[in-house]
Amino acid sequence: MRHKNTICAISTASGGAIGIIRVTGMEAIPQVERIFSAAKNKKLSAVPSHRLTFGHIGAPGEEPIDEVLVSIFRAPNSYTGEDLVEISCHGSSFILQKVLELLIDGGCRPADPGEFTQRAFLNGKMDLSQAEAVADIIASNTAANHRIAMKQMRGEFSRELLRLRERLLNLTSLLELELDFSDHEDLEFADRSQLDGIASEIEIVTSRLADSFATGNALKHGFSVAIVGSTNSGKSTLLNTLLHDDRAIVSDIHGTTRDVIEDTYSIEGTLFRFIDTAGLRHTEDVVEKMGIERSWQKIKEAQIVLFVVDSTQLENQLTTLGKEIIEDCQDKHLIVLFNKCDLIEIDAHRQFTTFFPEHEKQKTLTISAKNKSGIDNLIRALLEVAHDTANKFGDLIITNARHYAALTAALEDIRRVREGLSIKISGDFIAQDLRSCLFHLAEITGGEITTDEVLGSIFRNFCVGK
Amino acid sequence: MRHKNTICAISTASGGAIGIIRVTGMEAIPQVERIFSAAKNKKLSAVPSHRLTFGHIGAPGEEPIDEVLVSIFRAPNSYTGEDLVEISCHGSSFILQKVLELLIDGGCRPADPGEFTQRAFLNGKMDLSQAEAVADIIASNTAANHRIAMKQMRGEFSRELLRLRERLLNLTSLLELELDFSDHEDLEFADRSQLDGIASEIEIVTSRLADSFATGNALKHGFSVAIVGSTNSGKSTLLNTLLHDDRAIVSDIHGTTRDVIEDTYSIEGTLFRFIDTAGLRHTEDVVEKMGIERSWQKIKEAQIVLFVVDSTQLENQLTTLGKEIIEDCQDKHLIVLFNKCDLIEIDAHRQFTTFFPEHEKQKTLTISAKNKSGIDNLIRALLEVAHDTANKFGDLIITNARHYAALTAALEDIRRVREGLSIKISGDFIAQDLRSCLFHLAEITGGEITTDEVLGSIFRNFCVGK
Repeated sequence: MRHKNTICAISTASGGAIGIIRVTGMEAIPQVERIFSAAKNKKLSAVPSHRLTFGHIGAPGEEPIDEVLVSIFRAPNSYTGEDLVEISCHGSSFILQKVLELLIDGGCRPADPGEFTQRAFLNGKMDLSQAEAVADIIASNTAANHRIAMKQMRGEFSRELLRLRERLLNLTSLLELELDFSDHEDLEFADRSQLDGIASEIEIVTSRLADSFATGNALKHGFSVAIVGSTNSGKSTLLNTLLHDDRAIVSDIHGTTRDVIEDTYSIEGTLFRFIDTAGLRHTEDVVEKMGIERSWQKIKEAQIVLFVVDSTQLENQLTTLGKEIIEDCQDKHLIVLFNKCDLIEIDAHRQFTTFFPEHEKQKTLTISAKNKSGIDNLIRALLEVAHDTANKFGDLIITNARHYAALTAALEDIRRVREGLSIKISGDFIAQDLRSCLFHLAEITGGEITTDEVLGSIFRNFCVGK
Repeated sequence: MRHKNTICAISTASGGAIGIIRVTGMEAIPQVERIFSAAKNKKLSAVPSHRLTFGHIGAPGEEPIDEVLVSIFRAPNSYTGEDLVEISCHGSSFILQKVLELLIDGGCRPADPGEFTQRAFLNGKMDLSQAEAVADIIASNTAANHRIAMKQMRGEFSRELLRLRERLLNLTSLLELELDFSDHEDLEFADRSQLDGIASEIEIVTSRLADSFATGNALKHGFSVAIVGSTNSGKSTLLNTLLHDDRAIVSDIHGTTRDVIEDTYSIEGTLFRFIDTAGLRHTEDVVEKMGIERSWQKIKEAQIVLFVVDSTQLENQLTTLGKEIIEDCQDKHLIVLFNKCDLIEIDAHRQFTTFFPEHEKQKTLTISAKNKSGIDNLIRALLEVAHDTANKFGDLIITNARHYAALTAALEDIRRVREGLSIKISGDFIAQDLRSCLFHLAEITGGEITTDEVLGSIFRNFCVGK
């Protein structure tokens, strides 16, 4: 019933030259017609779809509030799939509020956040993952985020899911054929190795999509880069240099940084979240100790670790900390930075391999955070890691936690299917897991039943007017 | 030449669901066509005026940046009078910037502030006073401001000026008829008293318009209300009560307020600028003394003065300050407020007339700023003053300092005309003043020559994209 109302909202931010009010629903055109007068008594109800009409808006019989352009979109050829009217006013909050009031007085309801897109979904104009991409597109602040959201909105993710679904249905039909003949106990119509072959393909694709979430998340919220090393090695100076800012307090005193300081910075369209940590050393200071614990934690959580070594105390720092950090970073991208190259000239890689001959391939760079030398090389290295990570998944990258949860559940289902096939359990049980897997994939696009609760939680985070 | 370029701008504030980019000029349609692809290869160049076309925007041969709706307006039926295209994108700054970049790469120039409206003026779509009203409409934050700006934009002021101009031309032609026969020295074709009658009518209208500027200014920036009285009479408490805020520091100590504290507040769509002043008393404190001097200054500048009297010290306060304040307020709206009625019950008006029998008609009110009693009556009284002031000029109120300057100059001209007629100077001189008067009125609508400098100063304050 609620979805039958005609809704209205201001769809532009306040403060511009132009302001747009959107109205959608069965009554959208007559509602706007009531408060609109065009030249030569032209009637909005007679205007065809996709036309613009100039006129005045205001309460019937009263002074006009503004001169406006009205766009008419007739169902189903509109964003929402319903009749939709856009009123383009002068960008004054006073005017926009007045027009909204007139519409509400006439019986329109103020739209909930994302309700226009929700209607587009409910009317079959887009699936749920495409609808979610609309919010991502509006929020995207880097080229990478924008490209992923755009592909998702245009249905590339949905088509990949459709292909997965088709393979699953194929597997299911093969299995069900067998179940139909279940009287013949020993009969196995479907070739189990063929079935497992298909299931394995599904597992690979699903797993790849689920794995891409870490990257998607990094692209959306920034690749996390932990800056670690012993005290006074120049970590905070490096952070400030990378952020072009005086974000962290810098001094010659060992242990200046105690809190973990984070900030994001976009480099050539890729977002990084730099994390400056307390210097790693033995200390009795309770606060500093807590900071150091957090530093080790940040190393665990980071995708990229910059190990900053004070080149003037190279041997000491590499031997006390090096081993531990290298071990902790086995599954991440570690870059060893020999800092303070303005004070001492060294052959970084040779020095490093003297201590760690087994890590001959370790990436090392010589920099001076203070003089900003070698920083370009560091930025190249960071971008290379980010691009390699992103490219691993092509352009189909999951950025939405809801999709990740559904893919993880589907992955568990398909793994259970494969396990079932390998230990030759009854087709009944396998079919059940397959149905569950289909259900979880359908959740993403909202193809099957979608509860109001799920819709509510998805569209709550949209802006009003979209 | 500059006006021949095709220009582009983002016309919406960042942060909404929808973002609009406007392009206008000879090349507007081909420029957008270059980066736009519609379904079924539909060509924008073939789309008629006032149509909406759905499609993708992006660099030719590259991934699309967004799905957009493109509105086409063909010259002269557009806001600017030139071909104009509006691109309605998702409201992402990233997308809007990218689209703008593509347009600029193609040869469009980023629009200057107000350049779309400037073109509308240059192409004869509106006169200068209407163009100025566009900026006023966008800035208007109260019903009164909005109504005045709307009337101005719709040309009511321009039409009034046109009527003035017609009368002036009538006067001029009568005079010039006389000049044509100037050989006959003593001949006066035009009846001088008839001429003066017309000139007098012109003077009345021009003077009324010029006088309305004080009101127009008050409606735009707030009616100035000075709150004055002796120390500790409760002025700051009253300010806080009127502003629903803790704007001024309040204490029992005499002379708490030293600075002049100002704040605007909109009551029922009318803007007031409340000015709390230092209490008026004899003091040796240098800072307080300066504050008190400013208080007297503020009384001079205010349109409305609220004289706050501590009812518990009524006689003392009325006798020491009353006379001076009443005298200073002869040409403004004075309201005498008997404050602290929570502490003492008095018949305010009777008490007042005991001291000032000659000011029997003085408006007096009993209030308690602390308990907020009587404040409704005060607000009624303030609104009444504002409405009476505004209504005095009907709806034709000047709000623009440039118009005021031109009207004042025109008024001087027409007064010189009348003076000339009365002392019977030669028609030559009178005709010169009439031409000057016509010129000054024409300045307002930009009907005659308008220099780039004047245009620059007018449109500089517009927002970009309008």
